Amino acid sequence: VGSAAPTFVNIWRTKQLEYSFRRGLMRSYKNFSICTQNALDYTCNFLQTDLSKYEKNKLLEAYSILPVFDDVEDSLKELRNFKDFKIFAFSNGLFENIKNLLIHANIYNYFDEIVSVDEVKSFKPDPKVYEYFLQKANCVSSQTWLISANPFDVIGAISADLNAIWVKRSEFDIFDPWEIKPTITIKNLTELYNVLKNRRRD
Amino acid sequence: VGSAAPTFVNIWRTKQLEYSFRRGLMRSYKNFSICTQNALDYTCNFLQTDLSKYEKNKLLEAYSILPVFDDVEDSLKELRNFKDFKIFAFSNGLFENIKNLLIHANIYNYFDEIVSVDEVKSFKPDPKVYEYFLQKANCVSSQTWLISANPFDVIGAISADLNAIWVKRSEFDIFDPWEIKPTITIKNLTELYNVLKNRRRD
Repeated sequence: VGSAAPTFVNIWRTKQLEYSFRRGLMRSYKNFSICTQNALDYTCNFLQTDLSKYEKNKLLEAYSILPVFDDVEDSLKELRNFKDFKIFAFSNGLFENIKNLLIHANIYNYFDEIVSVDEVKSFKPDPKVYEYFLQKANCVSSQTWLISANPFDVIGAISADLNAIWVKRSEFDIFDPWEIKPTITIKNLTELYNVLKNRRRD
Repeated sequence: VGSAAPTFVNIWRTKQLEYSFRRGLMRSYKNFSICTQNALDYTCNFLQTDLSKYEKNKLLEAYSILPVFDDVEDSLKELRNFKDFKIFAFSNGLFENIKNLLIHANIYNYFDEIVSVDEVKSFKPDPKVYEYFLQKANCVSSQTWLISANPFDVIGAISADLNAIWVKRSEFDIFDPWEIKPTITIKNLTELYNVLKNRRRD
């Protein structure tokens, strides 16, 4: 792939999400791993990158154990001080894939539970998956916070009446100019503890 | 915009479709003109292109009267020879906008009717909009052909049991590597008459 790597990764990620949106809208669910594989095939076709089955599998494997940002573990440790908050990993990925990712990143033990959209057979930002999350987590929406770097996830959560924090890691990150804004915007997870301390119920 | 024009147009179009997919999936409909405007604002923010309200309106106006490819009018003229086929314009756009576009391109009179997804408050490829089309056009799916250059539309139509022809105008156009393929692929609309002649019911 070489010097085209940033373009390659960008198209792969964009198509992966597009495929999840379209399959959700079509009510024609295939799990997120399939969307990821299809998007990889699309990217190779589009960029005329001739990868072997073996090379594609290597890329998918690398994707499945991506490292986390430096601020993540300390932030999770701090959040553990909130005895009245439970921490969930809530993702488009399959349960086993999320678990595997968290274990590889050495942060699995900070989470109370994992909730995968696969159990609903749709994708974020379908309102059904946020409703399912609340039911599964046994939470009321007004006391629930979604934390995400993805604007589509923040907009989806707020549409479903949750609170949502947008993690805008770079000044170049753009939030969709829609009618919905994040409840709070932060630069990284180091800010999370203070922000939530001031917002949690007494 | 200058030399960044192809990038600008590409991001604008990609976001416009993403917004329609997401709003459809969210069951939080805003019409396609709003999606187009929001996508234009996103593109300006992303590329840090400081356009005035006036300049944005000029772009939106130009977009609303895009010219058609050279093969379109002759093809429509030929299709008129099929007395048992009706010709519909079926689009994500608002009724008035589609009508305006067809009038500007001098092809309005070749169409029997216009069907806009706005009447369903969702977007392609939601199965609901194809079902609505069949009902509105009073057609059975097995005798209905969608003709589109957009793979997402072709996949959506075939999922809803219509036949679909993919117009692959460039050898670099990529079809999504999903489980669904076009019924027929053609290079341009000049091929349409012959293809449909061989497929229509007697």
